[in-house]
Amino acid sequence: MTISREQEQREADLVAEVLASFGGCENPRLLELVSALTRHLHDFAREVRLTEQEWKAAIDFLTDAGRITTDRRQEFILLSDVLGLSMQTIAINNEADGDATEATVFGPFFVENSPGIEIGDDMSGGAPGEPCWVEGTVSDNRGEPVPNAHIEVWEADAEGFYDVQYDDERMAARAHLHADDQGRYAFWALTPTPYPIPHDGPVGRLLAATGRSPMRASHLHFMVTAPGKRTLVTHIFVRGDDLLTSDAVFGVKDSLIKDFEPQPAGTPTPDGRDLADQPWSRVRFDIVLADASPASRPPLAARSTSAAPTS
Amino acid sequence: MTISREQEQREADLVAEVLASFGGCENPRLLELVSALTRHLHDFAREVRLTEQEWKAAIDFLTDAGRITTDRRQEFILLSDVLGLSMQTIAINNEADGDATEATVFGPFFVENSPGIEIGDDMSGGAPGEPCWVEGTVSDNRGEPVPNAHIEVWEADAEGFYDVQYDDERMAARAHLHADDQGRYAFWALTPTPYPIPHDGPVGRLLAATGRSPMRASHLHFMVTAPGKRTLVTHIFVRGDDLLTSDAVFGVKDSLIKDFEPQPAGTPTPDGRDLADQPWSRVRFDIVLADASPASRPPLAARSTSAAPTS
Ligand SMILES: [Fe+2]
Ligand SMILES: [Fe+2]
Repeated sequence: MTISREQEQREADLVAEVLASFGGCENPRLLELVSALTRHLHDFAREVRLTEQEWKAAIDFLTDAGRITTDRRQEFILLSDVLGLSMQTIAINNEADGDATEATVFGPFFVENSPGIEIGDDMSGGAPGEPCWVEGTVSDNRGEPVPNAHIEVWEADAEGFYDVQYDDERMAARAHLHADDQGRYAFWALTPTPYPIPHDGPVGRLLAATGRSPMRASHLHFMVTAPGKRTLVTHIFVRGDDLLTSDAVFGVKDSLIKDFEPQPAGTPTPDGRDLADQPWSRVRFDIVLADASPASRPPLAARSTSAAPTS
Repeated sequence: MTISREQEQREADLVAEVLASFGGCENPRLLELVSALTRHLHDFAREVRLTEQEWKAAIDFLTDAGRITTDRRQEFILLSDVLGLSMQTIAINNEADGDATEATVFGPFFVENSPGIEIGDDMSGGAPGEPCWVEGTVSDNRGEPVPNAHIEVWEADAEGFYDVQYDDERMAARAHLHADDQGRYAFWALTPTPYPIPHDGPVGRLLAATGRSPMRASHLHFMVTAPGKRTLVTHIFVRGDDLLTSDAVFGVKDSLIKDFEPQPAGTPTPDGRDLADQPWSRVRFDIVLADASPASRPPLAARSTSAAPTS
């Protein structure tokens, strides 16, 4: 498409006019944000030569997303997730720090006040699924154990649902525990299974229209906190899962893919638990926490008590 | 802020991964749109080093915008308007064509099935305000009259409200008429007065936080259609209005600023109408319609019957 120089100028002048309108903004960071947002949104519209019909479709999309969003369903976070923006925000705010375990998306299914369990206990709360023994250590970037770290874990059940997605009041497949004074931890969980992000709304329609799947690679969520350490929000993924290369929210990182070793029924368990004739699995996840930088912001999870992100 | 090369690469890789996820999209235009949107949104987040807190604030903003949006209130369009995106979309889709009258934002206050009036009639429907005689011609780019063009006009009353903003069922200060076979038209309206866009929601808070006013420059809306012509959606503005340089939605164009000539009480009216002791004003607006391009899309207004844009 050819655009006349006059037309280019008219469009550029409009951007300049919008940017100038923010000249009275007294908050320098807000000014930076709205200015950059204006530039990038106009760049987008001008580059694709956005039609009025497409503009209207975008307004309708956002309107539909607003309509489906409730305290239990957050379509705008889903949108951010499937565009990779949530993961990009994580990447920007969690630069690699030595061997520190990598972060990934927080997801919408974390709940405050999970049940406390002891090392070796079962966090499944009766949720359906194959038992999985999870064990590891928490250490710092210098290889020193971090004693007594607080570990939150949560996951979907074998049906592909988190407890909060059921209409009853169940709390299951989530818990918190503390590592011991040597930084060691272990618990029983469920072998992770894949699940779709909610896809009966506009984001689901966008995925379908663009030939994408709503499925997330199987994962177990962790949030690990310890005094003086950067809070780690992450998942571990299951090596061999077909979905590792097509995770709907781009949460997979190679370093987070772990060997969940299948154990045939009858294999003795690490703690002597009797699983009768069930097969089970086991995985090791050694966690390395970065030091908190002096100027570090509190992590998202610590700031938000309401229904949060997706995944 | 210094970003390591590894970190740059990690962020760029994530963008590439998101773009690749759309590889199966079978609609080439949709692929172009989602790809460009992905690139520009990630560019924005990376450039400003978006914090997790700011990301959360953006999600909350969109959630609030969704909550306040109804059939009669469209916060997402307001957002597009105050960022100049609505006006940019108009600019992109209505390139200058010879002397053709320039377009501006459609606004949210157009209503289908306005009352039909004859040339010289009053479109105010009893709405409060100073009478204003509006007259002009409709012609084409070659200076030939366009006979019988369909002209929709609508405006706010002297209180700063459109009829649809009142809780009763009034229809006022809007009408449609047809130019005569020589392309001439005239009607009584109200001298335009300024009004604020709805600013009791998140968009109003954004304007306040960035030191911007919600006020729109005084204007009278026109939509003009004729067979074989590009539909014209525009306003005329009042020369001398203080708000011309700070219109909240960037709708003002120099060519659309007109002389509304004040007429003291008692000045004889063009059609002999007796206005008793009221002052009135008069304005001339000669409209030039571009030819419809063979491949032209139907205009937004003709496609949409529901509550539309802002301004
Ligand atoms: Fe999850
Ligand atoms: Fe208006």
